[in-house]
Formats: sequence, structure tokens, C-alpha cells
Amino acid sequence: MANKKVYYFGDGSAEGEASMKNLLGGKGANLAEMCRIGIMVPAGFTITTEVCTEYYELGKKMPSDLRDEVDAALARVEKSMNAKFGDASNPLLVSVRSGARASMPGMMDTVLNLGLNDTTIQGLIKKSGDERFAYDSYRRFVQMYSKVVMGVDADNFEHHIDHVKEQKGIKLDTELTAADWKAMVGAFKAIVQKEAGRPFPEDPRDQLWGAIGAVFSSWMKQSAITYRKLHEIPEWWGTAVNVQSMVFGNMGNDSATGVCFSRDPATGDKRFYGEFLINAQGEDVVAGIRTPQQITVVGKDLQKSTLPAMEEAMPDLYNQLCGTYRKLEDHYRDMQDMEFTIQQGRLWMLQTRTGKRTAAAAIKIAVDMVNEGMISKAEAVGRVDAGSLDQLLHPTFDPKAKKAAEVLAVGLAASPGAGAGMAVFTADDAEAWTNDGKQVILVREETSPEDIHGMHASKGILTARGGMTSHAAVVARGMGTPCVAGCGAIRIKGKEFTTDKGKVVKEGDWISIDGSTGQVMLGKIGTMQAALTGDFGTFMTWVDEIRTMKVRTNADTPEDAAQAVKFGAEGIGLCRTEHMFFQEDRIIAVREMILAKDEASRRKALAKLLPIQRGDFEGIFRAMGARPVTIRLLDPPLHEFIPHDDKGQEEVAKVLGVSKTEVKDRVSALKEFNPMLGHRGCRLGITYPEIYEMQVQAIMEAACNVMKQDNTEIIPEIMIPLVGYLSELASLRARSVNICESVIKEKGMKVKYMIGTMIELPRAALIADKIAKEAEFFSFGTNDLTQTALGISRDDAGVFLTEYVDKKLIDKDPFVSIDQEGVGQLVHMGVTKGRQGRPGLKIGVCGEHGGDPSSVRFFHKAGLDYVSCSPYRVPIARLAAAQAALEKGDVSSTA
Amino acid sequence: MANKKVYYFGDGSAEGEASMKNLLGGKGANLAEMCRIGIMVPAGFTITTEVCTEYYELGKKMPSDLRDEVDAALARVEKSMNAKFGDASNPLLVSVRSGARASMPGMMDTVLNLGLNDTTIQGLIKKSGDERFAYDSYRRFVQMYSKVVMGVDADNFEHHIDHVKEQKGIKLDTELTAADWKAMVGAFKAIVQKEAGRPFPEDPRDQLWGAIGAVFSSWMKQSAITYRKLHEIPEWWGTAVNVQSMVFGNMGNDSATGVCFSRDPATGDKRFYGEFLINAQGEDVVAGIRTPQQITVVGKDLQKSTLPAMEEAMPDLYNQLCGTYRKLEDHYRDMQDMEFTIQQGRLWMLQTRTGKRTAAAAIKIAVDMVNEGMISKAEAVGRVDAGSLDQLLHPTFDPKAKKAAEVLAVGLAASPGAGAGMAVFTADDAEAWTNDGKQVILVREETSPEDIHGMHASKGILTARGGMTSHAAVVARGMGTPCVAGCGAIRIKGKEFTTDKGKVVKEGDWISIDGSTGQVMLGKIGTMQAALTGDFGTFMTWVDEIRTMKVRTNADTPEDAAQAVKFGAEGIGLCRTEHMFFQEDRIIAVREMILAKDEASRRKALAKLLPIQRGDFEGIFRAMGARPVTIRLLDPPLHEFIPHDDKGQEEVAKVLGVSKTEVKDRVSALKEFNPMLGHRGCRLGITYPEIYEMQVQAIMEAACNVMKQDNTEIIPEIMIPLVGYLSELASLRARSVNICESVIKEKGMKVKYMIGTMIELPRAALIADKIAKEAEFFSFGTNDLTQTALGISRDDAGVFLTEYVDKKLIDKDPFVSIDQEGVGQLVHMGVTKGRQGRPGLKIGVCGEHGGDPSSVRFFHKAGLDYVSCSPYRVPIARLAAAQAALEKGDVSSTA
Repeated sequence: MANKKVYYFGDGSAEGEASMKNLLGGKGANLAEMCRIGIMVPAGFTITTEVCTEYYELGKKMPSDLRDEVDAALARVEKSMNAKFGDASNPLLVSVRSGARASMPGMMDTVLNLGLNDTTIQGLIKKSGDERFAYDSYRRFVQMYSKVVMGVDADNFEHHIDHVKEQKGIKLDTELTAADWKAMVGAFKAIVQKEAGRPFPEDPRDQLWGAIGAVFSSWMKQSAITYRKLHEIPEWWGTAVNVQSMVFGNMGNDSATGVCFSRDPATGDKRFYGEFLINAQGEDVVAGIRTPQQITVVGKDLQKSTLPAMEEAMPDLYNQLCGTYRKLEDHYRDMQDMEFTIQQGRLWMLQTRTGKRTAAAAIKIAVDMVNEGMISKAEAVGRVDAGSLDQLLHPTFDPKAKKAAEVLAVGLAASPGAGAGMAVFTADDAEAWTNDGKQVILVREETSPEDIHGMHASKGILTARGGMTSHAAVVARGMGTPCVAGCGAIRIKGKEFTTDKGKVVKEGDWISIDGSTGQVMLGKIGTMQAALTGDFGTFMTWVDEIRTMKVRTNADTPEDAAQAVKFGAEGIGLCRTEHMFFQEDRIIAVREMILAKDEASRRKALAKLLPIQRGDFEGIFRAMGARPVTIRLLDPPLHEFIPHDDKGQEEVAKVLGVSKTEVKDRVSALKEFNPMLGHRGCRLGITYPEIYEMQVQAIMEAACNVMKQDNTEIIPEIMIPLVGYLSELASLRARSVNICESVIKEKGMKVKYMIGTMIELPRAALIADKIAKEAEFFSFGTNDLTQTALGISRDDAGVFLTEYVDKKLIDKDPFVSIDQEGVGQLVHMGVTKGRQGRPGLKIGVCGEHGGDPSSVRFFHKAGLDYVSCSPYRVPIARLAAAQAALEKGDVSSTA
Repeated sequence: MANKKVYYFGDGSAEGEASMKNLLGGKGANLAEMCRIGIMVPAGFTITTEVCTEYYELGKKMPSDLRDEVDAALARVEKSMNAKFGDASNPLLVSVRSGARASMPGMMDTVLNLGLNDTTIQGLIKKSGDERFAYDSYRRFVQMYSKVVMGVDADNFEHHIDHVKEQKGIKLDTELTAADWKAMVGAFKAIVQKEAGRPFPEDPRDQLWGAIGAVFSSWMKQSAITYRKLHEIPEWWGTAVNVQSMVFGNMGNDSATGVCFSRDPATGDKRFYGEFLINAQGEDVVAGIRTPQQITVVGKDLQKSTLPAMEEAMPDLYNQLCGTYRKLEDHYRDMQDMEFTIQQGRLWMLQTRTGKRTAAAAIKIAVDMVNEGMISKAEAVGRVDAGSLDQLLHPTFDPKAKKAAEVLAVGLAASPGAGAGMAVFTADDAEAWTNDGKQVILVREETSPEDIHGMHASKGILTARGGMTSHAAVVARGMGTPCVAGCGAIRIKGKEFTTDKGKVVKEGDWISIDGSTGQVMLGKIGTMQAALTGDFGTFMTWVDEIRTMKVRTNADTPEDAAQAVKFGAEGIGLCRTEHMFFQEDRIIAVREMILAKDEASRRKALAKLLPIQRGDFEGIFRAMGARPVTIRLLDPPLHEFIPHDDKGQEEVAKVLGVSKTEVKDRVSALKEFNPMLGHRGCRLGITYPEIYEMQVQAIMEAACNVMKQDNTEIIPEIMIPLVGYLSELASLRARSVNICESVIKEKGMKVKYMIGTMIELPRAALIADKIAKEAEFFSFGTNDLTQTALGISRDDAGVFLTEYVDKKLIDKDPFVSIDQEGVGQLVHMGVTKGRQGRPGLKIGVCGEHGGDPSSVRFFHKAGLDYVSCSPYRVPIARLAAAQAALEKGDVSSTA
């Protein structure tokens, strides 16, 4: 027996159901599901994806038995809708849509109002009582159908409309009359005859078969083929076709249309919420031409609306709608966003889907539903979009004020939150102006470690260059300061910038930046601080009950560390020692060290740094208590610590008492073509072992001091960066152990310590089994691992990566969300080989990806022990880790 | 039964043999082998490596049954040497050496003259007839033994010697008398007592056991442990101990010592060759204090020596020696380098090893030995060091003149050969001076593509920065021009440079550079061009008979291509289109294209380039005939084509008729932090598709034109660089196919063409299975693959990579010889996955490693179809590929 080819739905019943997505496509399966639970949905049917495959197997011909099945289904639809396809007085009109398993660009979208012709139009005029509307619908149908089914260039029709308007001396489509549109239908059909070489089909059944064939044909359009190739969707999946009757909310005062939510999507309050319009089409509600009315009386009062609520105007239908929304929420067990149409006194649900909500609402709804016994805690945890928590942790702009503001440019949304201030162009100015009580946004070509003090002082940071993991972006995220990075549309010159539209912003002008969207706006826009509610605390408790992977933070100061602990950090995964080098009391000694001519003078300068670094580490150990702290030894190239400008170099020379030429020569000797791939990380430790020795000594002495004073056990984790060869690690580890042991001996204490390494070069992942022999822990540095595995400099990538995303060559910026296909293989390799080399090896990640939800899920699956991210992303990582545990099935989702 | 612990050798027989290297160590096994074939070697014995392991298992104690075996062996030695250990009148003296499977730094080296004490010294005085020599030997023994066996700091002895000389008012050791040395022996023993807390052992057996214990102990010295760890040598291998009797060539006029070669090591001529000295020690021959005598009369005549040859002076011993050298050459089936000593009329062979030889000699000997029926062709091919062929293809300095020259500095030996010329500091000067008939060496901080014309004009290139694969190095090797790169010891300022020793070289001063050693010398040193002999041709025929992997060349011009074909290239593996962009007629259009504000103007500029590029490709296709040519589409970032200096930018502005600011703005917009990881390769093709379209069109039109005119079949291979994502390749491939097909249609011809990609990013190797679906061939770009896999910028690596090699952290510069452990894994992955994705996929390599013998062997094993290298390395690659085939057993080595 041949498989069933057509699945009917309507009349509160359906032949299909939600689980039949592969056969009916996503759209068809969902329409069936709604009917199946007794919701009134305009009747229709779905032609299965198998028919599409058969169509191609038959050489683009419809299977012979399809026609009968379609006819039978159509008859049921006619009966259900009490209208007849092609009927002059009571015509059934339908929409035809494609519907694959996954939504797919390049596929045929929609043909509406199919079934109209010179006969049935009369019925539509009669039913709607609006001739202009009817003819406008008709000509739209001809246009849409001719384009997507018959391949006529849409410009032909647009040109004709323009031509008619010109002749009539009018400008707007709305000025065209019913007669104009009627004439247009005739003209359009003439165009079709000329362009397509065949007449526009008058017979509704011909129209229908044409549209079905067009859906199938669109499966093999070049754009669809390319999309499938890039997304590895097999060709044999095929597409389904959905044919559904049209209903109209504008057929008189007993008709209406609206949208509603089963709970308030802004606050999450358990309150039915929505808007509707009488005698109107769906588009009218969205377009805002007419002021919509509230659905509930409560809503009307809250909105101070003077128009009657649906509860008052159409009490019966309102009660039907209430029954429907409750049924849908109960069935889908989540807050629903619904569209409905009332046609001549009859309620039709057109769509229901899980409603979008703010982060605050998401948490409230999740917590409420658990309390209502509707969902489990695990489900609640699974419901909240981890990334959205950002909204709760950062200030946002007042939406109305923001809407009114002039957007100057859009850059990368590099660090979330809203910030407004006067534009300043140097870090020193940022600090000085702030000290004068002003509020500033620091605008820089790019930032460098020398700008840290200015970045700290600013309300926001805007850079013209650099990507999502540029210095500005990383540091800003760590500080929780909004940042828009890589904003190529601005050009900075001295103390002003010009946008690509020619707008000039001078020092002192107010600007506002939205680090969550990348927008740069003119003027001072008010901000609102979102407050953390009790629900948030409850919710995060559930999160931690489910989560199995630890979450640490990247923090370089006791303040950041303390903030992160408040957000739930369980340790420090990355403490970057070099960030400490820039404070005024130490940068001089650092520079002295760099300019030293031999090891002896270098050691002299390092001796000055030792007590300062020890103090830094004491502060951090204290802030973290007994939590583990991983400290990375010096990583960046030395030239980052010496000013590159003439004036700065002169000052350095003066302070250090050397000639300016000497400073210049050193700067020039340190210059590199590709600093990212240069003399940095453990390579510094190899060529200047005394630097790492000082740092290890400072770490161990600090640990001893804090252990003694606070009576806490501290287990410092010393991390050696940028290891590529086993020999590098073996050599540096041996030296470090020597120092550690001698400090322990001198202090007369027992201190456990660990020496580990970062896996941030492909070679390190490839030989992780060997490296693990010398490493007590691994931490993936996925920023650098991404840069090297992909051969992409994160600071230079802005120019082309955005274009890659736009052109759909890649889904996401690989510096935001880890490239699982490529870099992910190296992570898997590092984990597997690492634990081969040292069973039970502790492995974490400390790149920026540690705070990205989908990356966190990946790391959980890869078997990492922890992720580490900037303090403000710790709650996000906690939630993502819990969701990962649920997905992987480590915890039962009905727990 | 316990394993045999001691293996005797001597008297022309031995208990061990060459195959017992694991048990006897390398040295012990070879001494045994010589005895076994009846060569007279001073008798001795080897304690096995197993004893070392047992020694440690016993807690650093000698196995109980060792003593008896040693005593027995020692008795055989005494008998063989007719002397007695510890005897006052006829003492046996021995040397003690360590001997592991592989030579290993950190291990105990040698103790000579063991057995001397206040009694036996008398016997030595008597036998040698030289009291001063005897006491000097005695004090040396005490010094050496105390240091390596008893751990006394060597400085103690040196200080004492200095002290004595000072007291006596003399400066040289040679001024010290026999009595002085005698007194010194006593003083040294007193020092030992004081420093070691125990007396110097007088009993020769105590001395012997002390030395044996010291050899075993040295196996666990920190330096040896570290070395083993880095080279993955297992600890259980252990070391053997070799105890061998001493013989002396300075015991009167019936004693002598000498070195000889079974054939001439300089020319390869079949002629016994060597030097000796009567009544002398081995060191005297090497040290050159006395003028050595020739061994043969022929040699004497050739050298115009007036001293009698050994053939005349000691005819019997000469005949014995001839018998010995023939036996050894016959046994080892290769030219031998031997050391011998005649002690009181008796000939002893001390060592034989395969003799080092010049490249020319290596080829002559190999060809001769095949003709003599001594070795097979395959063996002959295996015998010649592939890397040494460089000597035959490039000029070398006159060795005497070079020896006398002042070495100013040493940089990287970046491109082999010798070159002399006047120093010039700009490419324009290099060209102008050469046009004036002068000979120049171009000295640059680093070179860029803008310098190509000056590089072409120069006799040699010297750069202060950049590594083995810097622009200067790569281009120079391609041209066959000598280059010393990354010479950090020179500092360039304007038109002069200063060395780190303060020497100044001004424009016009003569300098000479040796690109095979990295030396930079003052003055004009004469060069000699090595000629290719008929033997070379014969030899290379055998090479090609054995070789299975193809060898192509990297060439960008018809001239280079023609040169490479002469050297045996079988195709072009990499034609870099961008090198063509710098010639004067095209750089203007290139810059116009880069400065274009929109696609339309870019296309206009590209239209000017099209015919020029087409011409370039026609030239190359013609030069290569039917051989395959792989053309890489534009790879470097656009900023490489615009001058970075003010003057240059002004000129560009003038030529193109735009404002200087416009040029400056574009340069600044194109600036990158890490250009290596920036907007280049296929990323340019994605953002500016019109550039690749022009290039593909030029390639296809050129192929059609040459096919039509020359009636040759040409199959262009179009290569898309820097692919990381499948989507990049899929998109660019589709566009390229469109262009190809439309050219084919327009020209009305049938042209096969292939579109492939480079595998030069780790990600590409990781997803090679997917990439292969869209690529008809792969070419590994191992330069960039090394840079990214290791995270090392080749241009910046000089600073630390040399230190890594010096500190033994790595064996070889990974840019010279491929990092098999790390990058090698990516190559294997690329090959395996690539051929999974497309069975039979053609795979080659076009990085610099394609011309490095050990890398070529690796590529052969990895299953590559071809390697591609610069023209002058083609013969080297051919030989290395043949040797790889032999090693892998693809060809029988007795073929």
C-alpha cells in the first residue's frame, strides 16, 4: 500500500500530530497538534515531505494518486469552513506554504488568497463588504503568484503601479481606488501573458497545483541547494506543502483580529494580556495605524485606555479565548504568544508559539510555574535563556528615550549594558574629567593596557577597531563596563570623531552607547538599573542543584574577585599578572626591567617588583578565601609595557635616567610583525627565566603569608602560558618547582601547589598526552586557540568576519561562540589525550568562551571540570552549565 | 644462569659484534666488529648496559659476579697486549668510556691513562723514554679522574697550575719541566685529599672500579635525565662501559700515529690518502704543530712534500695498513676514515668510520662503487646526503681567501651560495649600481615585495631581521641568490650599518656573504663555481628510477620555471600571482584597484590588469609545456602593495590623481595588528570577488591561447589559499567554475581544469574530509601551517627560536625542517581525511619544507603525491624523495 500522502487538519481534530515533523515539516506538524487538542484552527491539509522526494524520483511529476487525496482533503476543508473552492458567492480561499523539517532560506514562502479569480472575487466583495480591499487582495494574489509560481520578474508589476500613479498624479498606494486596483488586475494578467508566455490561471485548481509544484521546485533552487550544502541538510529530507483556508477579521463589526499572551511577557506576571482590533486585518494590529484595544479590563485600566476591552465588547468570544489560552498554556506547559482572528462571530486561532519574554519575566514565569506545579525545577532551569541574564546584571536604556535617539553608528556589541557620557579621547582625560565629577565615554582607535586607568574611570568605551576579544572588549567585560568595539563607521582624528554619514562628535559632546546592541547614539539617554529579585535567587539555587561543572572567574584584582564571588564564582580560573604591571608604582620597575642590558640589572629591577606582586597576590588570595586561584605567569610581549609614542618614550627615558635613543632602540628591537605569534608567553620565561622566577616566588610567598595570617588553606595553581613544546614546560616547571620548594623551606610551612599549563596552541592540543606528563592541570585558552586554529587575528577580524556572518558563510563569530567543528576538535583532542597522559587531569577553560552559553554547553559535553569567565558572566555560565547537564542527561529533566 | 656481563675484544677477535648495539652500546659494538673481522685493535672489554640497570636495581651496587668477569677479561687484555695492569716495568694502561645506545650529552666522557700511579709511572717513563711526557700524562690522569670520578672541581687544579707558573715567572704550560709536572702530581693529590675528603686511589684496580661506578652514576645525572626526557629515551636502556688498553705512537722512532682515508674525501678519486707523524701522539697530527708526512708516494708528489712518505719510510707497516684499509672498505662497503697508531713497530687501528666527504666526492664514490660492483644503485642513492647537493649548485668561496677574511657578523644561512659585492641599502640603488656595471650586496632591515627588482640585481642579500622563511629568504632561494637573513648583530642606519662589535660598513664598501653558513665578511672574497660532472647526471638518473613521489617547483616567472625544468622539476606546485603585481607596468593598476571606492571602479582597474596577467600565465604555461601548473590566487594582504613611507604615498597619490590623504587613509584602514592572521588569502576573494574573477579569467584565457597556439594540452590547477571554512571554498569554487565555463564557451575549446585548495590552517586539516568534497586537489602550505599550529610568526621567531635550538629545547628550526611531532599530525590528518572525503585526492606540499630532505622523507611516508620547492632545491628534493622510497621499502635497497 502506498503511504498516505495528505494529512487533513481542522474542526478541532487532525490526522497528524506534533511528533510527525519529519513527515509533515515543522509548520504542518504544529498546525495538526493545535487541532488535535481541540483548538479551532482554519482547516487545511499538509502534503508530506515524502511526496516531494517522489516528485523528483518521477522526474518532477506529481504521483498519480496524489490528486485524489488532495481532492478528498479539500472537500473536508470546504465542509469544515462552510465555503466552496471556486464558488462565486461563498468562495473558499487558501494559503499555500512550504514547510521543511527546519526553516530554510531559499524556499518558497507563501501564496495568500489563492482561489481568487474574476468569478470568486464577487463572493469576496460580498463577504467583506469592501470592494477596494477585495481588489487589492486580488491584485496582490496575482502579483505574488506570478512571481513565485510563474517566475515573472516582480519589477514588471511595480513599474506598472508607478506608471498608473504617475498618470493619475498621485504618490501613495492608499490614494488608489477600488476601480484602479480592479483595472490593475487586468493589466497584471496581460503582463503575465507577455512575460510568461501563458495566461494567468483562472481555474482555482490550476492555481493550486501550480503553487504545490512551485513549492516542490523551490526545494532544488540554487539558493536552497547552497544552504543545504553549508548546513549539511540532506536532499532526501524534502519539503512538505501546507494548504490552509484563509479567514478574515475585516468582514464587518462581528469580525476582529488580535494577538495575546497567556502571561505578561514584560514582567512575567500571571495575567492574560493582549490587544485586538474590530473589523481589521492582522497587519493592522502590528502596523499601529489604528490604536488597538485591550483584551482584558485589567489591561484597559493599566493602560488607562478609553476604548472598550474585548472582555466588555465581545464577552462570549472573550470567554472562548480565555478557555483557549488556558488550554494552550496547559498543553504546551509554557507561556504562549497567540494570534487569532474572529470572522463573522467565529473565533479562529491562527498561531500559537512559546512567547518571547524579558529575562526578568522568564525567571518569574519559570519560578511561578514550578510553584504552580506545572513544571519541574529542571524544566524551569531549562526554560531561561542563559544569555538573557545579562539584562538583569547591567543597566539598560529607557526604551522610549532610546527610540527617539539618533543612531550615529553601529559597532560590535562587545560588553553589555548602557552607558552615557561626554566623549573623551585619551585615558588621561577620562580620568581627569571623572575626577572633576563628569561622566565620560572613552573613545579610542583601540585600547591598550596603558589605558586601563581611563577605562576604569569611564561609563562606557567605544573603539573604532578590534573585535569581540580585543583588549577593550575583554577588559570592559571584566569590569562590567559597556563597550562598543570595532566601530568601523567612525573615524577618529585628534579629539573628535566623524561618522561615515559625516556627523562630527567633538570632545565633551554627549554620546550614549549600548553595549548589548552595538549602537552608538547622540546625546544623553537615561539608563535604568535592573534589580535582582528574590525569584532570581531561588532560580539560581535550582541552577546550582542541577549543575555539575564548576564555574570560576577571570579576575586580576581583589575587587573583581569579590564581585565574582557575589555572582557565585567558585574560584579564579585566570588571574592575569600583567594587568597588575600597569599601575603607577610598578610600571617604572617593569620598564627598568625591560630596558635592562643584562640579567643582573634585570634581576635588580625584578627585586623591586617582587614585594608589589606579592602584595597583589595576597589581596587576591584573601578575597577568594579557600577557593582555588589559578595565576598565569607573564604572557604579553614586552613591548606592550613601553609607550610607542615619542612623548611617552621621552618620559620613560627621563624617569629611568637613560637616553631617549636607548629607549627607542629597545622599542624598535622589540617591534614585531605579528605580536600575537611573537615573543610572549612561556617564550619570555625561557629567554628571561628570572621574570618567571620572581613571579613564582611572589605567588608562593603570598600564599604562605595569607595561610599563616588567615589560617586558610591556599593551593596556588601556577599556570605557564603558550606552551607548544613539551621541553618548554619541562624546563619551566623544573625551575618553578625549585623556587616553590625553596620558599616552602624558608617559610617552614606545608603548602600544596600545582603547576599546570594553558592549551592555547594547536600543537599543544596535538601533543596533550605528552604535555600532561608535566602538567598538573590544563586550561584551554580558547581565544588564542581560535586565533591560531583559524588563522584569524581577533583584532583584525572585524573587516571580514562580519561580512562572513552577513553572507551566511558562518553562523556566529568564532570569538563569541566556540567553533565546535574546528577548534572543538582540538578541545576534544586535548581532553582525551591529556587524560591519557595523566588520568583524572583537571581541565578548565579560561577564554572568553567560558561565558558564552552555547560554548559552555560544549565544554560540559567535552568533559571539562570548570569554565572561567568574567565576573558579570558568572551567573550566565552557571545557568548554561546547568542546562548542559540537563541536555546531556546527567540530571533527569523531570527532577 | 645469569646473563654474560662482560664482552672481551682484541687479538683480531671479539665476543660481541655490530648487531649487539643495545647490549654493548654503539661504541662497544663497533670495537667488537672491527676485531671480529681480524683488524688489530688495542684489546679491551665492554660491560653491558644490562649491568647498568642491575646496578640501579641493587641500590647502586655492582652485581656480585661482575668482578670475576672483569678480572677474567682484564687477564685476556694483559695477555693480548703483553703488559700487566699495575706492573712497575711494563704497565698496562687503559681508557674508560661510557657508551649508550645513542650518544648522549651529560654522560661521562673519558678517563685516559688509567692504571698510572707512583709505581707504574716508572714503566711508562721507560717505555716512552720521555719523563716529561710521562709525568704530564700522569697529572692529566689525576686531574681527569678526580674531576669525573671523584667530583673535585677542576678549577682547583687550574689555579694551582697558574700559581706555579706565576711563582716561576713563566706563561706557557710548555715551559713547565718534567720535574714541575712531577711536583704537580703530588700537589694535585693533596688537593684531592682536601676537597674530596679521601685520598686519590693508588691501586689501579680501585681506580678502575671507581671509573666504572662513575660511568654508571653519570646515567642518572640531572643533565642526562633531562636529555632523556626531552628525547624520550627510556631510563631502562642504561649505558655500557668500555675499558680499552692505551697504545702510544710516541715511544720512539718505531712508533707513529696517523689518519687516513680509503679514497680521497675531497674529490672522491679512488686513491688511498692520509698523513702520519713518526714518534708522535694522535693530537699532534690534528693540532698541526709538526708538519705531517704523506702516507703514499703519490700523495707526497701531489702535495710537493719533501718529507718521506710512509710507503718509503715504513714499507712493511705501510703494506699492513693498505691491507687493513682495503679490508675495512670491503667490510663496511664505503669509504673509511681511519685512525691508527704504531707502537714500537706494531700497527693498531684505533677507529674506523664512514668518512665525511664533499658532495662532489660523495657522488663520484657512489658512482664508482656501483661500477666496481661493490654496491647497488639503490645503495649509491642512499649514500649521498641530499642536503649536500647545494654545494654543487651554488658558487662557494675560495676556502683560503675565506679563512683569512674578517667575519663581521653571523646571521641565518637563509639561501646557500657565496656572494661578494659593494653594500647598497635600497633596492633602487641595487638596480642602478648594477646597471652601472657594479657588483652589489643589498642590505635591508627586511625586504618586501617592493624590493624584488633590487634583489634580482644583487649578488647577495643581507637582512637584519626575519627568519628562514622571511620574504628575503624565500625569494632569494627561489632566485638562487645567496642570502644571510635575520642578522641581528648588524644595525642599519641610513646608508650604513654597524656591527655589534662597532665596525661600520658604509655604502660602497665591499662585503662578502656566505649563504650556506650565515657569515658576513669584510672585503671581496673570490668565489668558485662548482661544475656539474657527468657522474652527477648518471647519479640523478638512478635517483629518478627509484623515486616514486613527484617533484615540482615554486616558480613565478617563465625564467624560474625554465631553470627548474633544467633541474628536473615535473611541474609547478606553486605560482604566486602576487609576485607579478610589482612590476612597473602593473603596480599602478594594482594600486588603483586597491584605492577604488566601489566595486565598479575596482572592476575598471582590474580590467587593466587582466591582459597583463593573462600574458604572465601564457609565459609560464609555455615554459612548462604539458607539465602541470598550479596557480594560487591572490594571497597577501592588500597593504603589501601600497608604500608605507610618506614619499612613496605621495608618488602614488600623484600617479593616480587622488589626494595624499586618501592614500594615507586607505593605508591606515588596511593596517593590521597581525597581518599574517589578517585579511588575506580567500578572505580577499570573499570580500572582493572581482579580484579572483579576474585572475581565474586570465588563467583560463591564457590556457586556451597557449593550447591553441602550441597545440599542447594544458590543465590549469587553480588554487584557493587560506581556506578554513568549507563555505569559503564552496562559494569561491562556484564563482570560479562559472568564470571557467564561460571562458571555455567563449573560446569554443575543451579545457580540463582543476580547482583545489591549500591546507595551511589547522582548521582546514581538521575538517579536510569536508573540504575535499569541494577540492580537486590539496596542497599543504606548511609555512603557514607551521606558523599557526605552533603560534610562531616566522618573521619574529629569530629572537627566541635560535635560543631554543641552543638550549636544546628543540632539535631544528621548525621552519627549516617540518615539525613532525606536531605539524606532522595535521599533515597526516589532512591526508587521511582528505582521501576519505575524495578517494584518490591528489595531494602535494608547496611550503619551504618541500626542499628540505628530512621533510621530504616525511612527506613521502605521509603519502603525498608530490613536493614542490624552489628551483635550486629541486635536485635535493628528487634525491630525498628517492631515499625516502628506499627507507620506506617501496624499492628494494639492493635493486
